[in-house]
Amino acid sequence: MIKVGIVGGTGYTGVELLRLLAVHPHVEVAAVTSRAESGRAVADLFPSLRGQIDIAFSEPDAAVLHGCDLVFYATPNGIAMQSTPELLQAGVRVIDLAADFRIQEQALWEEWYGMSHACPELLPQAVYGLPEIHRDKIASASLVANPGCYPTATILGFLPLLEAGVVDPGSLIADCKSGASGAGRGASVAALLAECGESFKAYGVSGHRHLPEIRQVLGWTLGELPGLTFTPHLLPMIRGILATLYARLGSEGVDLQQLYEKRYADEPFVDVLPSGSLPETRSVRGTNRCQIALHQPQGGRTVVVLSVIDNLVKGAAGQAVQNMNLMFGLSETSGLDYVALSP
Amino acid sequence: MIKVGIVGGTGYTGVELLRLLAVHPHVEVAAVTSRAESGRAVADLFPSLRGQIDIAFSEPDAAVLHGCDLVFYATPNGIAMQSTPELLQAGVRVIDLAADFRIQEQALWEEWYGMSHACPELLPQAVYGLPEIHRDKIASASLVANPGCYPTATILGFLPLLEAGVVDPGSLIADCKSGASGAGRGASVAALLAECGESFKAYGVSGHRHLPEIRQVLGWTLGELPGLTFTPHLLPMIRGILATLYARLGSEGVDLQQLYEKRYADEPFVDVLPSGSLPETRSVRGTNRCQIALHQPQGGRTVVVLSVIDNLVKGAAGQAVQNMNLMFGLSETSGLDYVALSP
Amino acid sequence: MIKVGIVGGTGYTGVELLRLLAVHPHVEVAAVTSRAESGRAVADLFPSLRGQIDIAFSEPDAAVLHGCDLVFYATPNGIAMQSTPELLQAGVRVIDLAADFRIQEQALWEEWYGMSHACPELLPQAVYGLPEIHRDKIASASLVANPGCYPTATILGFLPLLEAGVVDPGSLIADCKSGASGAGRGASVAALLAECGESFKAYGVSGHRHLPEIRQVLGWTLGELPGLTFTPHLLPMIRGILATLYARLGSEGVDLQQLYEKRYADEPFVDVLPSGSLPETRSVRGTNRCQIALHQPQGGRTVVVLSVIDNLVKGAAGQAVQNMNLMFGLSETSGLDYVALSP
Amino acid sequence: MIKVGIVGGTGYTGVELLRLLAVHPHVEVAAVTSRAESGRAVADLFPSLRGQIDIAFSEPDAAVLHGCDLVFYATPNGIAMQSTPELLQAGVRVIDLAADFRIQEQALWEEWYGMSHACPELLPQAVYGLPEIHRDKIASASLVANPGCYPTATILGFLPLLEAGVVDPGSLIADCKSGASGAGRGASVAALLAECGESFKAYGVSGHRHLPEIRQVLGWTLGELPGLTFTPHLLPMIRGILATLYARLGSEGVDLQQLYEKRYADEPFVDVLPSGSLPETRSVRGTNRCQIALHQPQGGRTVVVLSVIDNLVKGAAGQAVQNMNLMFGLSETSGLDYVALSP
Repeated sequence: MIKVGIVGGTGYTGVELLRLLAVHPHVEVAAVTSRAESGRAVADLFPSLRGQIDIAFSEPDAAVLHGCDLVFYATPNGIAMQSTPELLQAGVRVIDLAADFRIQEQALWEEWYGMSHACPELLPQAVYGLPEIHRDKIASASLVANPGCYPTATILGFLPLLEAGVVDPGSLIADCKSGASGAGRGASVAALLAECGESFKAYGVSGHRHLPEIRQVLGWTLGELPGLTFTPHLLPMIRGILATLYARLGSEGVDLQQLYEKRYADEPFVDVLPSGSLPETRSVRGTNRCQIALHQPQGGRTVVVLSVIDNLVKGAAGQAVQNMNLMFGLSETSGLDYVALSP
Repeated sequence: MIKVGIVGGTGYTGVELLRLLAVHPHVEVAAVTSRAESGRAVADLFPSLRGQIDIAFSEPDAAVLHGCDLVFYATPNGIAMQSTPELLQAGVRVIDLAADFRIQEQALWEEWYGMSHACPELLPQAVYGLPEIHRDKIASASLVANPGCYPTATILGFLPLLEAGVVDPGSLIADCKSGASGAGRGASVAALLAECGESFKAYGVSGHRHLPEIRQVLGWTLGELPGLTFTPHLLPMIRGILATLYARLGSEGVDLQQLYEKRYADEPFVDVLPSGSLPETRSVRGTNRCQIALHQPQGGRTVVVLSVIDNLVKGAAGQAVQNMNLMFGLSETSGLDYVALSP
Repeated sequence: MIKVGIVGGTGYTGVELLRLLAVHPHVEVAAVTSRAESGRAVADLFPSLRGQIDIAFSEPDAAVLHGCDLVFYATPNGIAMQSTPELLQAGVRVIDLAADFRIQEQALWEEWYGMSHACPELLPQAVYGLPEIHRDKIASASLVANPGCYPTATILGFLPLLEAGVVDPGSLIADCKSGASGAGRGASVAALLAECGESFKAYGVSGHRHLPEIRQVLGWTLGELPGLTFTPHLLPMIRGILATLYARLGSEGVDLQQLYEKRYADEPFVDVLPSGSLPETRSVRGTNRCQIALHQPQGGRTVVVLSVIDNLVKGAAGQAVQNMNLMFGLSETSGLDYVALSP
Repeated sequence: MIKVGIVGGTGYTGVELLRLLAVHPHVEVAAVTSRAESGRAVADLFPSLRGQIDIAFSEPDAAVLHGCDLVFYATPNGIAMQSTPELLQAGVRVIDLAADFRIQEQALWEEWYGMSHACPELLPQAVYGLPEIHRDKIASASLVANPGCYPTATILGFLPLLEAGVVDPGSLIADCKSGASGAGRGASVAALLAECGESFKAYGVSGHRHLPEIRQVLGWTLGELPGLTFTPHLLPMIRGILATLYARLGSEGVDLQQLYEKRYADEPFVDVLPSGSLPETRSVRGTNRCQIALHQPQGGRTVVVLSVIDNLVKGAAGQAVQNMNLMFGLSETSGLDYVALSP
């Protein structure tokens, strides 16, 4: 059994990790930390976990965490970087579900996140944990930066087009829509049901932190940073992301369907739907799956890629478990064999 | 034109008052106060009011408020009682949309609201502003306590039964369900879309502040306090209350439909539906109307009364405007002639 | 492996059965029938099942079904009774998720369901499949009538009170609220999002088919039929039932919490929450669990029991799988070890 | 008083027209026709209209309709064209809320709508009823084609850019999202709450009927048909459309904010929000308003226009009333002076 600790277990990525790890066949959850809820039974805060998780929240105690094989950070941005160095030194492997290690370039990270990085020396060794591009690196990594939710849906949707070099990388558009759980479990007026239920809006249009992350990763493939307009929107629902992606084909006659099916043929969690399909977020709810469909309206030069994930699973906790499976030599799908909860 | 001030205009009852007053033919909104938002255009915080309300939030300035004919308090409990005495002394009439003056008995109020009352000497003159029982008193009142949302739906539903003395007042049950706007516009985890969307629960089962209010008002009719079990629930939607009310008939052969139709024949905002109807909250959305339907399942002794209102209108701001109309000799329906927004 | 067939796999109970059975360790789904969709891949209609269920819908073919160990009927009422006799004769065991065998008394069934029963001779041998009262009978049954969703939540909530004889059985009230999936996957105006979203109403107040079912089962315990007022309501959400149950205690001094904890101590799927809890439907979403909490407001004689289930799992497909596990000597929780999807 | 008839009053555009006309100061609703509901009180089908609309649905009777000043068709596509010629001949003016007269080119209409046009000779005189481009023509029109919902939000969003000639008209993108009421009040599986609640998807990606309509209208401004990719999506909510529009600026240094503010300075129902705003659909709920905001992310060449309307008001019934006001010389805002229902 892999002994894991979870730092910051009171948010949505934390409780989702617990949902998955509670019944994972090769994991023992040794500690779930929370300064605010220390001493309180985890299942008291989250009655969905009654009978599944029998421990209490604890203070983030170095001794306990150092005794783990793996520590997940399910904390706000800027927390993991404080204590990751000592964990790594103690031989503990780390997966950060927040953004501390997602951007390789320190200055860029500091610009977008508005703080100094506490351990920039670790950035070169941090592996961006998208298994579909970094499977081997993840297996041997000590420190994995779990991708953002929008980046996961967007990158998986654009990747085959960019790898094949068939679209103009200068004017990509990602029109993305997310459920409200993406905003986290913090008290806020904007995320109240009475505010964001029965309504719809864009946000972060002038610049969202996932923009540099997406550009960085697509840039690895392209060899240069793509031109990308990224527009996130807030859906009046809880879980799910749909990325509607637009790109201009450079030439005609590309068999897009074949391109995608081939690229993702061996990926356990990327499912290319039949041509003409219209993926729904509910079809991946609760699962680690990304479903993708391709469209070329009226046979024109504009490709429309539709990509859906569950933001809390493939967009967060599920992908973290997938990374853990890779890091510890388990079957990549271990503990992730869920059928979507639909309806 | 009646010159009105609104104290505390940043909550849901505040913005709803503004929605109604902005187009009320006999009202001029002279001031909307908010310490937190002072100086900011009201329509900047609430873009739904652009072009309708052109003033900015201001500090609660006595001089301005004393120049009003009427001041509405759309504040949390415990605020109105601080400055109501001086307003009344200045000749300004007051409608409090919070609970400060709803309970006549000071000790009872202090027990349920957990604070000392700042002006218990005003309680005897405060009129409980339910026009269906206090129309005349309201007309001449200086201080009106606007009823709570659950009490409005529940009292209007039970009233004819209790007035006619046809049910056992010792074991009334009010199983009530409210949309999330009833919790107000304050930042809270429990009211997040991701918490209370797609889920349903009861709350306040052991004791909710609207219980003593309902009992008090029904007690005025009965001459004694009724036995009442009151169970509020939180609906995964924004607006609307349905009260499902249960009472035991003392005798057979009562024509309930006729009883209700007669009782409410002259009420502009209480609509008794045809026998067997199933009222929906959406049918009164945005209106000051209460729709009521009566059922006597299997012809037994248990009466089931279904009563729907919009918690922000007849349950708050709309009833306040109705009270204002009465206080200033306007037509009772002035500015309240809305058709429900359905679907 | 148990070889199962599903008759009528295109509704919500059908797809939910498939969700559970697809990853059940001891089950092979041999056939999913649908006249309307015959020949179409199941995963084409339900993309949530891609990669999990690889067969196509087929015509309801006797030969195939007779080769199964167990057939589930996930059909509308009145279908299972047509072909159950021949299945039983062929040695196939049957679980009907519809209502054909729920009511023991033929005349009562025919009155409420408005049709003649096709095989009343089977009613005596049909076992009402609520494991919490019929575990042993189910184990040896050939024909199991899977309980209705409201009855499951309501009966489990009332049962300890009635078994202990501590409440007046003459005036029980069950105020129940269900998500819209309970209405099934048939095209209807009333169940459109634009009709029942953001609104709330009661329905079936004058008489709902689950009323005689609840009364019958509670009657087995009481020795006589209870007096019950049952009011179902439609929630603007997809999954989940909350039953708010009211009963009058006959005497004081009953330790309700202990009564329930003791009654359900060995039940794997009934979870009595700590005193004062407020169960939420989301805490059991996707699981076979029933969570129950007890309240005695103001220490009075009225008990309020709150009981939540997922109407598609413990209220339908999950309970059917639980029954299957019992019938085939498997661990009762086999294939049902889910953590609720919350948020 | 203008005497109006409504043909097809049982759908969402019909009931919304009734909501607006019931309290319109210059309108008398003389007839609401429905073959299916003939004889039934309108307020019986739509309890939201109780006390506001006192007539019953009637058969579509030529005599009655010929006695009207104006007839609204709130029918499915293909109905209005059957009887519009005789109405016009009888001197009755017509506003069709469906699509029969929206496309000027007969062959194009027949291709997209899959039927023969019954009165192509009327197409030249039909005025496309978007007041912001056709105010004068509408005033004198006998036959007005009320625009589609997506076209209204999209055209108003793109118009100033195209009129000013500052963007490349060859690669416009309209990523549009609509509430479920846009699908109408017909029974359908796809529009069930349990299907499209808590989920999100695109639809009609390969070609939606509003595509040729948008291209036609934008083409009037451009002098040629624009290149447009139009992707509609279905939101898990009832009312509201957000169009997220993308265009490439041809040159730098255009003051977009000033361009839009100037273009719409005199428009009573188009509200250009301050630079950087993020319009929400709820801010226009129940109103005839379109709110627009402009963004130029990272100062690049891609313009992002955000445009919100209520699909049932400015996208249907409200715009029809606005057109009626223009046709009959009333104030353009008459009967449309609503404040949005928010929250």
